Amino acid sequence: MKRIFTNETPSHKGEKVKIAGWIDGRRDHGKITFIDLRDKEGVAQCVSTPQQAETYKTAQALRSEWVVEIEGTVQERPQAMKNPAIATGEIEIAAEKIVIFSQAKTLPFTIDTNGYDLNEEKRLQYRYLDLRRKRLKENLTKRHTVFGFVREFLSNEGFIEIETPLLTKSTPEGARDFVVPSRLYAGKFYALPQSPQQYKQLLQVAGFERYFQFARCLRDEDPRADRQPEFTQLDLEMSFVEREDVMELNEQLLIALVKKLYPKKEIQEIPFPQLLYKDVIQKYGTDRPDLRKDKNNPDLLAFCWVIDFPFFEKDKETNGWTFTHNPFSAPKPEYMNDLMAKRNIAEILTSQYDVVLNGMEIGGGSIRNHQPEALEQVFEIMGYEKERIQANFGHMLEAFSYGAPPHGGIAWGFDRLMSLLQSEQSIREVIAFPKTGDSRDLLMQSPSEISEQQLKELHLKIETKSQKKS
Amino acid sequence: MKRIFTNETPSHKGEKVKIAGWIDGRRDHGKITFIDLRDKEGVAQCVSTPQQAETYKTAQALRSEWVVEIEGTVQERPQAMKNPAIATGEIEIAAEKIVIFSQAKTLPFTIDTNGYDLNEEKRLQYRYLDLRRKRLKENLTKRHTVFGFVREFLSNEGFIEIETPLLTKSTPEGARDFVVPSRLYAGKFYALPQSPQQYKQLLQVAGFERYFQFARCLRDEDPRADRQPEFTQLDLEMSFVEREDVMELNEQLLIALVKKLYPKKEIQEIPFPQLLYKDVIQKYGTDRPDLRKDKNNPDLLAFCWVIDFPFFEKDKETNGWTFTHNPFSAPKPEYMNDLMAKRNIAEILTSQYDVVLNGMEIGGGSIRNHQPEALEQVFEIMGYEKERIQANFGHMLEAFSYGAPPHGGIAWGFDRLMSLLQSEQSIREVIAFPKTGDSRDLLMQSPSEISEQQLKELHLKIETKSQKKS
Repeated sequence: MKRIFTNETPSHKGEKVKIAGWIDGRRDHGKITFIDLRDKEGVAQCVSTPQQAETYKTAQALRSEWVVEIEGTVQERPQAMKNPAIATGEIEIAAEKIVIFSQAKTLPFTIDTNGYDLNEEKRLQYRYLDLRRKRLKENLTKRHTVFGFVREFLSNEGFIEIETPLLTKSTPEGARDFVVPSRLYAGKFYALPQSPQQYKQLLQVAGFERYFQFARCLRDEDPRADRQPEFTQLDLEMSFVEREDVMELNEQLLIALVKKLYPKKEIQEIPFPQLLYKDVIQKYGTDRPDLRKDKNNPDLLAFCWVIDFPFFEKDKETNGWTFTHNPFSAPKPEYMNDLMAKRNIAEILTSQYDVVLNGMEIGGGSIRNHQPEALEQVFEIMGYEKERIQANFGHMLEAFSYGAPPHGGIAWGFDRLMSLLQSEQSIREVIAFPKTGDSRDLLMQSPSEISEQQLKELHLKIETKSQKKS
Repeated sequence: MKRIFTNETPSHKGEKVKIAGWIDGRRDHGKITFIDLRDKEGVAQCVSTPQQAETYKTAQALRSEWVVEIEGTVQERPQAMKNPAIATGEIEIAAEKIVIFSQAKTLPFTIDTNGYDLNEEKRLQYRYLDLRRKRLKENLTKRHTVFGFVREFLSNEGFIEIETPLLTKSTPEGARDFVVPSRLYAGKFYALPQSPQQYKQLLQVAGFERYFQFARCLRDEDPRADRQPEFTQLDLEMSFVEREDVMELNEQLLIALVKKLYPKKEIQEIPFPQLLYKDVIQKYGTDRPDLRKDKNNPDLLAFCWVIDFPFFEKDKETNGWTFTHNPFSAPKPEYMNDLMAKRNIAEILTSQYDVVLNGMEIGGGSIRNHQPEALEQVFEIMGYEKERIQANFGHMLEAFSYGAPPHGGIAWGFDRLMSLLQSEQSIREVIAFPKTGDSRDLLMQSPSEISEQQLKELHLKIETKSQKKS
């Protein structure tokens, strides 16, 4: 007999079925034993009585979280025992055969609560048990559904998903890179991507015109409670567009996503308000304003765009110019002459657009600087010497010299967006196997030491005398 | 005016349109200039005459691969000039305005051929130009379509896609790990995943029952022409299944995929033949037999399964036992007693199944050993001491002690499958930014040196005295 899921049992009334899953609970009521069997789709109640002597004996031996398969006949529950609150509440399965696949030790914590009050390190250590929690199952299942929705929306708009490399090159901009020592090339390293920025721009030079990717990004940042060394971004890039085109497409996608998959949520204002950086800083003291008019409404989503950021700001350490968002951005068209003449630098505005939801930045992007001469100006304003520009960005400048389309794009912080949509405080609640805020994997016990042999093959020696930790 | 794609122009006959893209070619015929404009959807012919003096002047200045936007009116071509071979062959666009976005240097190679005869290192160095080639665009576009098809098929079967970590733990089994030094924890390392094997099994312990992922995998292997240090696998895992269930699902998926997306291809035999390891070795001298009856038919797909592999084989170096495929596999049920008693080890068969296409292994998997005692036996047969088992696999053994379902899965070598479906010899032809066979990224020039400062932060010193290369 083919196993069916618990939620399929009500449509098999009077028939024999086979179900399988975990013991969610067992209750003995005199000469009758009730077993709640949980599988990925829900819970079904099974009953066992001494008439089936051997099965009854097995049923009585069952403990929570044991894994079993049960064969039996689906029957209507006595009227008084019906439970309209659950999908299988009208029926029960009269157990005829029980096979035990696995026994289970007592779990280190309960899984029938939302788990917020538990020690989080323990939850992460036993993540495979923590994930049995209904809330986390729903978070990850919804994450999958959102993946699907976004992919379908973008595919229908002519985008194609393209994977970009994980082993790439270290560049000295942005956050710190994680690096990967090469065994074949002594003393050399790959870098893990902080984002697919350069690749997605090169795909525009290649003529793909509409690229997206749910991209895995890695940044070696200092410990912070709600930060992860690896995260997922929805990364997209388009050719022959202006700022408003990218904003419009993303706004339509976000609205469609909320309306379809979160019908109970309410978007405060459509179209999303577009706020100027200088105004939000003045009015809210932050460039991530929380515009919700009713902070007590957990279903209220206040999206807005923030635009017209300064392109450059003074680096506090060097007192030279540095970029505020992304060196590959184009200035707003009316500032291109200033950029080319390197004048009024503090006044130059970038084409950057950030999308903010309930006070959190959930995405940001810009129109890019597709003219190699203009991109070079950016690096020169930041004080990079010709050699450094050539060494780090020579391949981009060269690429743009073979016919580059105007292009722009965006990246969404997908974990953050999911946490807001799922009404979670922490991004760890929407990631299957998160690390701690200080980048430890408590389940696998990573990072960990590697063997002398591995070190030798990688041409490395550890310098332990400095700040050895943990 | 909103820009449209070239393939949309025929439905705008008599109307004014705006298109944008790359100059695919320019021909001057006396007082008329023809411009082929290429965008992601195809090519459209534009015409310019001296009647529009300024536009004509611009048109004559255009060179191959310049990026432009053209406004003009769609008109029917003179009868003799119609080209039924292309989608826009009935019409042409009378150019009224031409905007030049970018000029282009002469490309280092031609892009209007299939490119097989070009120097591949050059192709990889200028990958963003190589990708302008129609063949490569089609390969990546089809790859996207296959992603979508597989995702929809599996989602309809109740699978959800779950991302697993990239920064994980080094284990001494299988191929070599790439490792990532930790800055926060001196002397410690993460490992990049060779596959999500342990995570996908832990997701079964968590009760997800049906998991899949297009997973990025990384292995530090020795140079070989058609191997990549990073690759993509379709990774899936199911609970409460037997070997035949996983094989059946995957066979149905492969058949549906070919029928829907490759209707010209012919599957030689359905259901796929199931061959025993001992028979294929005897008959073909390989466990990846090429069963094609007509090797000259490029559209013939001869799938088969190979099953009943030995679980263990003698390690040539140590003369101890080692696993042939995957230490987490279960033996076939009838050999479980032998495994538990550690007897007749050479005769124990594993539940492993490989799927082979035209002589290439495109996937493999097994039913897993979900009983911790049985899994321990495997490691003991291989001579691992208790401490080593505990250190490397303790978390898996513990996980299985909290109620583990019987489960099994498979991983497809997705790059290889795509290369076969696209009739390509090399997996590099179906990867956007591949590395060389010896793991160099010629576009980004990676791996490369990192700064003294980075090394210091990572608590590392390079030992250069050994075989310094490149």
